[in-house]
Amino acid sequence: MSLTRVSLTPPYLLYIGDVAEADNAKTGFGLAHWRPELCAGQMRLPDCGVDLGLRDMSVRDAIDAGIRTAIIGVAPLGGQIPDHWRPQLIELASAGIDIASGMHSKLRSMPDLVAAARKGGAVLTDVRVPPDNLPIGQGRPRSGKRVLTIGTDCAVGKKYSALVLHRELERRGIKATFRATGQTGIMIAGEGIPIDAVVADFIAGAAESLSPDNDDDHWDVIEGQGSLLNPSYSGVTLGLLHGSQPDALVLCHDVTRTETLGVFGDYPIPELDVVIDDALRLARRTRPGCFFAGVSVNTSTMTDFERDGYLGKLQDHLGIPCVDPVAIGMSPVASFLLKHAS
Amino acid sequence: MSLTRVSLTPPYLLYIGDVAEADNAKTGFGLAHWRPELCAGQMRLPDCGVDLGLRDMSVRDAIDAGIRTAIIGVAPLGGQIPDHWRPQLIELASAGIDIASGMHSKLRSMPDLVAAARKGGAVLTDVRVPPDNLPIGQGRPRSGKRVLTIGTDCAVGKKYSALVLHRELERRGIKATFRATGQTGIMIAGEGIPIDAVVADFIAGAAESLSPDNDDDHWDVIEGQGSLLNPSYSGVTLGLLHGSQPDALVLCHDVTRTETLGVFGDYPIPELDVVIDDALRLARRTRPGCFFAGVSVNTSTMTDFERDGYLGKLQDHLGIPCVDPVAIGMSPVASFLLKHAS
Repeated sequence: MSLTRVSLTPPYLLYIGDVAEADNAKTGFGLAHWRPELCAGQMRLPDCGVDLGLRDMSVRDAIDAGIRTAIIGVAPLGGQIPDHWRPQLIELASAGIDIASGMHSKLRSMPDLVAAARKGGAVLTDVRVPPDNLPIGQGRPRSGKRVLTIGTDCAVGKKYSALVLHRELERRGIKATFRATGQTGIMIAGEGIPIDAVVADFIAGAAESLSPDNDDDHWDVIEGQGSLLNPSYSGVTLGLLHGSQPDALVLCHDVTRTETLGVFGDYPIPELDVVIDDALRLARRTRPGCFFAGVSVNTSTMTDFERDGYLGKLQDHLGIPCVDPVAIGMSPVASFLLKHAS
Repeated sequence: MSLTRVSLTPPYLLYIGDVAEADNAKTGFGLAHWRPELCAGQMRLPDCGVDLGLRDMSVRDAIDAGIRTAIIGVAPLGGQIPDHWRPQLIELASAGIDIASGMHSKLRSMPDLVAAARKGGAVLTDVRVPPDNLPIGQGRPRSGKRVLTIGTDCAVGKKYSALVLHRELERRGIKATFRATGQTGIMIAGEGIPIDAVVADFIAGAAESLSPDNDDDHWDVIEGQGSLLNPSYSGVTLGLLHGSQPDALVLCHDVTRTETLGVFGDYPIPELDVVIDDALRLARRTRPGCFFAGVSVNTSTMTDFERDGYLGKLQDHLGIPCVDPVAIGMSPVASFLLKHAS
């Protein structure tokens, strides 16, 4: 089974166009945070509402700085590249700078960009292309251990939490692999399967392929996608859940999020104990002993005092570690996971 | 929004190769049953374990009988066309007989078949191709009424039950449209969206597009796909459920089915009241008032006496109409549906 492997040449320029909200620049933030040594600059259009904290570059600056790859650092809902971004992308490609994208709309389907890349000698890489010949899900139990992050919504820290948990397991000398399921995770890890780009019949099969049989003491830390609660993406989430057969789940949440993003606007997020119960009912279909190893909450809008109070109360209520992955890290979750996994 | 529209020229020859089990010849049985006036024959390989009850034809017979389209009447799990079927398909296409397929593997991706069709002047139609430019699900409530069939598994009568219910509503003078989501349904109805062939991120959006705003007293009768209980296809099912926003559900079941098909083999089907409760928990995320209008059970292995006892007991227990769609029809379900829909 081959994963989608990406090979991008640094240094990177992160292109974020005129994206308005940080939630839609997850790829940019993810790369800037997890691969800072590879990211040399950002490129923005005048009305951009986001700052990755990197040096702003023009096309000229990028050439002078020796940028090798411009990565589209934006993942808007629906995954289309806006037309008004093309002129800059064409300029970059014409100058021989490779372009990489994780959007649904393909760089290689834009004739003007393809022509510019050919002229400039640039490589166009579409990361959101699933492997060929994915199997249908089999439902067969696999050796090795798995933990999957799931979220109360999209963009609540599922990838981030998985990466922090993976790093924590490795720090403890545990055999562990981060399994990327989205474009940013794939760019960070260098491989994975863009699970939301798979043909629907093959979601579970893709998830099974992503975390194959392994050593009994090896952990796959699987990046979650979408949310069972978000009516736009719940199918992806359930397919990934059933195919992953996780021994354990980590619930990711953003304390400011009261409704799911990007939809009609009347989908409130239930109490977290309800979310947990509902997810376990579904997860235990393919992994009867599945349990929650913790809750990972983005509490960045809170003071330290507020955060301690909120997480302490939540932990008392749920009986599992509740952390902020940035402020606290995932060590309590890793300890709980390793203690309770059979 | 354009659906996938198919235009096939009768009379049809239903090609079922050497398929072993009737469950895998759903397309053939569906067309033979619902469009008998269009189906003139069947073509089988020597080891075929299925009989559609049509005249067996060789390629020569098909030509003599004036067959215009050979439809691959098989939908094996995974949807691939076996290599050893190709010689007959090539012979048919060479003779100018159109070929239609609802499999994932595309007729148009087989160079030898494409060449034969060009030589013979035959048209190759791949039904399982979703429309371009599907939107992401929005979650917006839509006008009009919807009923969706869901199953305890694949191949338990979701399409059949929906077609019978649709016919019953029309018989009563109710405005109703059958909404096809699979290859057989699309071939029967002439249009629809092959929901399991959609890219995963767009499942809910496809379901929303399939049943758009309509008159307040119009019913969309939506063909279900997969099963929340079948770990290979549950993602498709949940996306279709959340995108359809059904006012009502009809549970389809096969009384002989104790485990889900085609997978590892250790996924027992729970009691139906548990299945109903779990489905409603999920359905009410996008349609708070969703209710079950009935249970449609394939009891073809039972005597009349056994069936009456089984359905009577089930109906007492669940408090909703429980029918066999062949032996009894869907009239009690239609009555319950119309009475309880707000």
